[in-house]
Amino acid sequence: MSADINDRQLRMAMIGGGPGSGIGDIHRKAARMDGQIALVAGAFSTNPEKNREQGKMQFVDPSRVYDSWKDMLDREAALPPDKRPDIVSIVTPNHVHFAPAKMALEKGFHVIMDKPMTLNVDEALELRDVVRKTGGVLAVTHAFATNAMVKCARDLVRQGKLGKLRKIVVEYPQGWLHALIEKDNHKQASWRTDPKLAGAGCIGDIGVHASHLSETVTGLRVIAVAADAAAVVEGRTIDDDFTALARWEGGVRGSIEASQISFGEGNGLAIRVYGDKAGLEWRFDNMDFLIIKYQDQPWEKWARGSTYVAEASPSAAQVTRCDKYHAEGYIEGFANIYLNFAKTVRAVIAGRKPSELDLDFPNVLDGVRGMAFIDAMLKSSANGGAWTDVAQY
Amino acid sequence: MSADINDRQLRMAMIGGGPGSGIGDIHRKAARMDGQIALVAGAFSTNPEKNREQGKMQFVDPSRVYDSWKDMLDREAALPPDKRPDIVSIVTPNHVHFAPAKMALEKGFHVIMDKPMTLNVDEALELRDVVRKTGGVLAVTHAFATNAMVKCARDLVRQGKLGKLRKIVVEYPQGWLHALIEKDNHKQASWRTDPKLAGAGCIGDIGVHASHLSETVTGLRVIAVAADAAAVVEGRTIDDDFTALARWEGGVRGSIEASQISFGEGNGLAIRVYGDKAGLEWRFDNMDFLIIKYQDQPWEKWARGSTYVAEASPSAAQVTRCDKYHAEGYIEGFANIYLNFAKTVRAVIAGRKPSELDLDFPNVLDGVRGMAFIDAMLKSSANGGAWTDVAQY
Amino acid sequence: MSADINDRQLRMAMIGGGPGSGIGDIHRKAARMDGQIALVAGAFSTNPEKNREQGKMQFVDPSRVYDSWKDMLDREAALPPDKRPDIVSIVTPNHVHFAPAKMALEKGFHVIMDKPMTLNVDEALELRDVVRKTGGVLAVTHAFATNAMVKCARDLVRQGKLGKLRKIVVEYPQGWLHALIEKDNHKQASWRTDPKLAGAGCIGDIGVHASHLSETVTGLRVIAVAADAAAVVEGRTIDDDFTALARWEGGVRGSIEASQISFGEGNGLAIRVYGDKAGLEWRFDNMDFLIIKYQDQPWEKWARGSTYVAEASPSAAQVTRCDKYHAEGYIEGFANIYLNFAKTVRAVIAGRKPSELDLDFPNVLDGVRGMAFIDAMLKSSANGGAWTDVAQY
Amino acid sequence: MSADINDRQLRMAMIGGGPGSGIGDIHRKAARMDGQIALVAGAFSTNPEKNREQGKMQFVDPSRVYDSWKDMLDREAALPPDKRPDIVSIVTPNHVHFAPAKMALEKGFHVIMDKPMTLNVDEALELRDVVRKTGGVLAVTHAFATNAMVKCARDLVRQGKLGKLRKIVVEYPQGWLHALIEKDNHKQASWRTDPKLAGAGCIGDIGVHASHLSETVTGLRVIAVAADAAAVVEGRTIDDDFTALARWEGGVRGSIEASQISFGEGNGLAIRVYGDKAGLEWRFDNMDFLIIKYQDQPWEKWARGSTYVAEASPSAAQVTRCDKYHAEGYIEGFANIYLNFAKTVRAVIAGRKPSELDLDFPNVLDGVRGMAFIDAMLKSSANGGAWTDVAQY
Repeated sequence: MSADINDRQLRMAMIGGGPGSGIGDIHRKAARMDGQIALVAGAFSTNPEKNREQGKMQFVDPSRVYDSWKDMLDREAALPPDKRPDIVSIVTPNHVHFAPAKMALEKGFHVIMDKPMTLNVDEALELRDVVRKTGGVLAVTHAFATNAMVKCARDLVRQGKLGKLRKIVVEYPQGWLHALIEKDNHKQASWRTDPKLAGAGCIGDIGVHASHLSETVTGLRVIAVAADAAAVVEGRTIDDDFTALARWEGGVRGSIEASQISFGEGNGLAIRVYGDKAGLEWRFDNMDFLIIKYQDQPWEKWARGSTYVAEASPSAAQVTRCDKYHAEGYIEGFANIYLNFAKTVRAVIAGRKPSELDLDFPNVLDGVRGMAFIDAMLKSSANGGAWTDVAQY
Repeated sequence: MSADINDRQLRMAMIGGGPGSGIGDIHRKAARMDGQIALVAGAFSTNPEKNREQGKMQFVDPSRVYDSWKDMLDREAALPPDKRPDIVSIVTPNHVHFAPAKMALEKGFHVIMDKPMTLNVDEALELRDVVRKTGGVLAVTHAFATNAMVKCARDLVRQGKLGKLRKIVVEYPQGWLHALIEKDNHKQASWRTDPKLAGAGCIGDIGVHASHLSETVTGLRVIAVAADAAAVVEGRTIDDDFTALARWEGGVRGSIEASQISFGEGNGLAIRVYGDKAGLEWRFDNMDFLIIKYQDQPWEKWARGSTYVAEASPSAAQVTRCDKYHAEGYIEGFANIYLNFAKTVRAVIAGRKPSELDLDFPNVLDGVRGMAFIDAMLKSSANGGAWTDVAQY
Repeated sequence: MSADINDRQLRMAMIGGGPGSGIGDIHRKAARMDGQIALVAGAFSTNPEKNREQGKMQFVDPSRVYDSWKDMLDREAALPPDKRPDIVSIVTPNHVHFAPAKMALEKGFHVIMDKPMTLNVDEALELRDVVRKTGGVLAVTHAFATNAMVKCARDLVRQGKLGKLRKIVVEYPQGWLHALIEKDNHKQASWRTDPKLAGAGCIGDIGVHASHLSETVTGLRVIAVAADAAAVVEGRTIDDDFTALARWEGGVRGSIEASQISFGEGNGLAIRVYGDKAGLEWRFDNMDFLIIKYQDQPWEKWARGSTYVAEASPSAAQVTRCDKYHAEGYIEGFANIYLNFAKTVRAVIAGRKPSELDLDFPNVLDGVRGMAFIDAMLKSSANGGAWTDVAQY
Repeated sequence: MSADINDRQLRMAMIGGGPGSGIGDIHRKAARMDGQIALVAGAFSTNPEKNREQGKMQFVDPSRVYDSWKDMLDREAALPPDKRPDIVSIVTPNHVHFAPAKMALEKGFHVIMDKPMTLNVDEALELRDVVRKTGGVLAVTHAFATNAMVKCARDLVRQGKLGKLRKIVVEYPQGWLHALIEKDNHKQASWRTDPKLAGAGCIGDIGVHASHLSETVTGLRVIAVAADAAAVVEGRTIDDDFTALARWEGGVRGSIEASQISFGEGNGLAIRVYGDKAGLEWRFDNMDFLIIKYQDQPWEKWARGSTYVAEASPSAAQVTRCDKYHAEGYIEGFANIYLNFAKTVRAVIAGRKPSELDLDFPNVLDGVRGMAFIDAMLKSSANGGAWTDVAQY
């Protein structure tokens, strides 16, 4: 009932996110931060002991902690309306993305899930069809391009501040896989470097963030790539570093670079976009600000939380929690998705049409495009770096 | 029962934080982020309509939304153990700090409250005595010095990395009160610039953060000040800017500067500390990092979330949520207090002795010292900037 | 003859700057950079061997290298017009500033000399009178406030960009005197820490730069100070650190802080100025840029070498050598003085009136004000930090 | 005679650098700064009036200002030993590099010239042979990779601080050619965008700096490129932007990106190098520092002028003029070449073997490699971005 939905928190079940899963913790903190969502059930780990441990740490009723996500979806779907979860959050490794998302949607849950959305394009397209058929809401946590100042950058580009776009440079250096730590029982590293569990390595783990960021800021899709990817660390069997020449719609030129073996780097996602009137730069390591660059007038530093950002970008204002110069961080990127996803889910449950502002989160189509990007990158790379079209669905 | 307390979220009632209260929102997000605390009751606003509106937005049971904080404390204290709040959060203007804190403690609640703790030293000392008498836990949200890298800085100083300390420089420029916005119905500005409601202006609002930061990092108390404070903006009747010469224990020299009229500044809290072996710098606008400065070896940039920080500072590690180079922000400073406060409250409820790590949050003694600092600053300022001792309690 | 002076380099004799004198080298490079000045004679060192060594390294005709600056001034003054130096550069320790400057002026040379101009106010006032009597040109190398972007800052303030000024904060942390290196035969340290040779320590060595920078940028004189200075390093007999509360003309408030014992710091001169319309920040460690700060519009980063800086500040344009974003450095600060000094000297020799742009360098009146500042600082400090007027001459 | 050469400045004739030539001014300031070189003759411009004007501004004897560089080389070569120039500096557009360099060498002058060394590889190889035949010294002003901290980076890489190298990323964004300013009588733009006068556009003007920087820092030659270059601005007939995938010796991977149409950018040359023990970053816009990046220890900021840099890199120390934290700038990059070139020329004239430290400047072989890089880039680009070997001579 619509009256009900406005008077209570959304109820969430989580798949994945057992003890030691960093990303599960981030999702939970993001979901909780704005008070819209309560965690009520979980299949956190396939290890029963760890699963129960996490349930207890999260204060979830033990009767709603399940060792199998299928069981959970089955049994939670059967609960009465005042207990039944509204949404399912999927934070498992990539090979356990598609099946639970499909089942959850088919059981009538709305789904928020980590990226890359699936293991391959076929799964992605099928999931798109499931979303269309079920009318469920699906969000993918491309949680960098949902930063407030990325939204502001996008809106400034839309408003013509940069003029006609000419060039895009995206970089994403990390260093954490500089050694073969997957042989040392490093949980995060071991599934991420296993082609069967991850699909792609650096391309799928962070390349897809870089690609999505470029599409978000510019409003232009990546249409072709020439990829130079490799497994740099000896003994590794999946790509851990790449540079790709790229073209975006309208023939805009540029490059996308990502790496997990760039020794010492943390999480250096950054984008520069140049038009014929101005340029812009946004860096994850200075995320609350956007630099607008001019030739014959001073560069400008736009600050999240300011009056002028709110005016230029209502989308940025909608996800702004702290005053200007009071930093937001990594978790807020996820929270921005959870917040808009929650608002959209509330609208759908209430039978209202979600607003454009509420719908501003990465959805199943972004997920499909991410998989098409990964697919083209792997093909180009296998083909000696030949220019390869990114399939457009 | 101790079994019970480990299996459930702590229940929180909030005083203040009505619609439009920025700081109330920050407290709520901080309290929720880590999943330890649920908001179950509130006296958010003395305006009944706004109070109900906030209750609804926070999904608080309407029967537990009270127009008077006294009513709330009375009635919530009478609830059965499985409903009764454990903690009370006080986020009102300064003149409504002391009375509700005292009453809440006396009713058996634990209290977390905004700074400055009270309107004056007498209230602060009385509150200290109430804490002692009731055995309640009291936290004051000096939420800058609880940043992970401030804790790391403190621990490095303790371990002798800087050698014998010689000089401390703290600065805190803001610009938001550059005009007489309190005459324009600006809610935040209007109580903060009213001596009766705020006690002190810039000194009480942010000077006390600067002072507390210096004491936290160095482990040395401010013992004397020579303050040059003024109401710079014409028409204002409370200090909006100051510079103070200062002495810390052991005769360490330096200065504390804060301003609310530094046009264009956001929230520029920063500290530099110099010893006879090294110097350090921490800036709120780069809060995830700590710079260690040497003469004849490279400066070092210490990153929150790293192995070496965890090793040097278990306190920093305890409040670290995101990987290194994945930024935390302003809210996490508050969340760090709520988290350790919650752990301490759980221990007290369970009859356990809280650990040193859990007790690492600003307590009633920090609050008393803050009021003594404000008092000395106001006296020195009224006395032409004469050197004035900060009373030590 | 005026025809002659436009067709040749100015000829310079140098006093001081023997082997190992860092500042002598800087002066020579600055003097040479723009091709206006040739070094033709020198009394580089009172040690005859070192003096000859430096002469040879500088390719000065051995017959014009003198062991005594008095001899040099006597004999060079007697040379015919086509050989006689036009200018004398004085780069000796402070106690050998006044006498050679006076004699040089009286012999008809123009003088450029290091700061602080003299040992005390009396010498400074006498030198001012000698300048007036002789009509000589005298420049003092306060070489920070002559940076192009400081000139731009000054011109923006003059043009009202900041509105009515309210607050000034100047800081100048250095770390090189953190230990008692003057006991280790450290030449720079040993005269600078000897009250008889230096007059004042940190106040005279760098405090005077900070004061001069504030006066240059704001156009307001320092009128009173309350100084907290000390010899922090055990065994030292001269001030090595201070913080001063300060007042500028019109009652503008703020502070000046300088230190030579701030472990790890290099040369951190920086100024922030706040008005009722905007704020500005200039830092020596980012000297090619000026940040203009606003509350409700983006901060601006003004770049030396740009069209908009040239338009706002012809003085900045006059001393700009490199394109925007092609860094200038420390030497250019000195070169800016030598360049304008040289242009002024050419005008005077040619009997022309120097232009306002050419006269834009620190002159004998800046030197006098520097000495008055030092004097007031020492008096205030000796008097327990009492507010002390800076004498205005 | 060797006695003579140590007792006097080197005499320099200049080709190019008329009024309005920015780079000519930079060369002259760099040559003068260290006092080793005097400008005694010039063929500054083919416009006789402008040529004389520059001669007068530079105080060059009018009888030694020539309208034709051939005349100048002829007649200056015939002067007696005590007047004859030692060196010729060539600062003309690219198509006037080869012929004067060849003739100058053949007349017995030593040559210092701007980059790219010639118009094409054939000219470069011939010039190499002329150098070998004549025994002349030739320096090419790749003036970025001669920065002190680039030398330090190179030496740290050589000493194994980064371990085995894995990845190199070089970027060089500029924005000044964002519009078709070459049609507006913009002198710098007009020859640089004319294929006949420049050879290549962005590749030749700045790409060659990026390539040279990578080879200097890593000690590895670029061996293959896959180039995506274009004339982005409508109406332009020469490349103004490129990204290239690249391989260095040993199969080290990475990319080189340069642009002259990146709106708002100034001169953003930067390099990141990653090994299996550490990473490094050097940026032209922070040229006095080198960042060393680690995973599990703090990043280090190495400062030019420090004791530890001098110890790790005597080459850096040799070209250090200012104390640490006292910035050097763009001109010093050129001065570093002039200084070492002058020392080498002095040694050659004196019949001494130049030291390794003195020979540390870009020479004719660097010039040849630069031309081979340009050649491979143009071929790859014309060939749809196919991987193309860089010829190794």
